[in-house]
Amino acid sequence: MRIAELSRRSGVPAATIKYYLREGLLPPGVHTSPNQVDYTDDHVARLRLIRALIDIGGLSVNKASEILAVLDSEEHDAWETVGKAQYALSARRPVDAGDAPDEAATREVDDLLTRRGWQIRPGSPARRTLIDVCATLHRLGHDDIAAALDDYAAAIEPIAAIDLNLIKDKTSIPAITEAVIVATVLGDTILSVLRRLAHEHASRPLLHDQTTKRRYVTRS
Amino acid sequence: MRIAELSRRSGVPAATIKYYLREGLLPPGVHTSPNQVDYTDDHVARLRLIRALIDIGGLSVNKASEILAVLDSEEHDAWETVGKAQYALSARRPVDAGDAPDEAATREVDDLLTRRGWQIRPGSPARRTLIDVCATLHRLGHDDIAAALDDYAAAIEPIAAIDLNLIKDKTSIPAITEAVIVATVLGDTILSVLRRLAHEHASRPLLHDQTTKRRYVTRS
Repeated sequence: MRIAELSRRSGVPAATIKYYLREGLLPPGVHTSPNQVDYTDDHVARLRLIRALIDIGGLSVNKASEILAVLDSEEHDAWETVGKAQYALSARRPVDAGDAPDEAATREVDDLLTRRGWQIRPGSPARRTLIDVCATLHRLGHDDIAAALDDYAAAIEPIAAIDLNLIKDKTSIPAITEAVIVATVLGDTILSVLRRLAHEHASRPLLHDQTTKRRYVTRS
Repeated sequence: MRIAELSRRSGVPAATIKYYLREGLLPPGVHTSPNQVDYTDDHVARLRLIRALIDIGGLSVNKASEILAVLDSEEHDAWETVGKAQYALSARRPVDAGDAPDEAATREVDDLLTRRGWQIRPGSPARRTLIDVCATLHRLGHDDIAAALDDYAAAIEPIAAIDLNLIKDKTSIPAITEAVIVATVLGDTILSVLRRLAHEHASRPLLHDQTTKRRYVTRS
C-alpha cells in the first residue's frame, strides 16, 4: 500500500509516519519504482504499537525508539533480548549519570531484596531507581511509605505472576519480546488506573470518617 | 533565609527556584526589605516535594503545578480536596478532548467495575483511561492482556489497602492531601520498579525453558 493508505488504516497522519521513518521507529517500505514506496500490514501493526507506547504508555518518542530497537535487533539468545527490553523499560535516568546512590537507602533496598529472595543483578536499573525512591521518601519525611515497601513487594508478586503467565505460551523471541513490551508499558498504565479506581471506591467512607473526626475536633 | 541558602539546603539551583516561583509551584517568600526576600523551612520542604514529583514521579512541570495547586487550595471539604487531587493525578488526556470512547471497551470496563463492586463516578478520568487502554489492547491483538484485567483488578486491591492505611491516621486535610499525592505519584514509580524486579527474578528460569523449548523445536 502507499503512504496515504497506510495513514488511513493506522489513523496516523502521513507527516508523523515520515517522522517515525526518519527516526527509525518504523522500518522503511520497499521501493517498487523510483517514485513509489510500498508498505505492508506489518507497518500498520507497528504504527499501532508505536501509538500505544506513546499515547497510552506515556513514553517519549526517544524512549519508544530505544525499546523498538531491541525488538528489531537480531539477537539469537532469548534471555539477552528479553533482558535488554526489560532493562530499557526500567531505566528512568541516564545509566552513566555517575552520582553515587545513597548508602542507607542502598542497604535498605538490598535487605528488602534479600528478605524476598529476589535475585537481582547489581546493575539492574530498577534496583537503582528503587534506591533513589527510598532516599527521596526519607528526605521528604515519608518514612512510613518507605516502611511499607515490604508490603508492596509482597503484593506485587501475584501481579508479576499474571504478567509472566501472559508470555509463557509464546514461543518465538519477537513474540515474547513484543508481549513483554506491551504488558510492561501498558501494564504500568493499567495498574496505575486500577489503583486510582480502587482508591476512588475505597476512600469514600474513609474520607467521610476523616471529615466527621475533624468536625468533632473543631467542636471540642 | 535568603535564596542562596534556600538553594544550598534544597539542592535546587537558584535559577530553577526563580522559575518555580514565577510558575507558582513555590509560594513567594516574605519581603523583609525592598531588596530582601526571606524564605522558610516550608520552602525547603516544598522544593523537595517538587523535585520528588518531577525527578522520581516523572511528572511534567505543568502537571506538578496543577497538583500542587490542589494542595494549596483552601477547600474546607476533605472529600472535595482529596477527590480533586486524585482526579488531577489520574488525567492522562485533556478532559475536554471530546472524542467518544470505544463502545465495546466501555461495556467491558463497566462490566469489570460491576463484577468487582467498585462504585466509580462516570466522569472518573481513570475509568476513561482504562477504556482507552482496553480498546488499544484489542486493536493491537493483545486480547489476552485485556482478558487478564479481572485478575489485575483483584490483585490491586491489597495494594490500594496499603495505600489507604498510610493516610488513615492523618487528621489535617493538607496532611492527607500531601500523603495522597506522594503515595500516588511515588507509588506509581515504586510499583513499576518492584514489578520489574519481580520480573527479573522470576523470568530467568522461564526464559531458560523457552530457549530450551525453542531448541527442541528447531531440532525436530
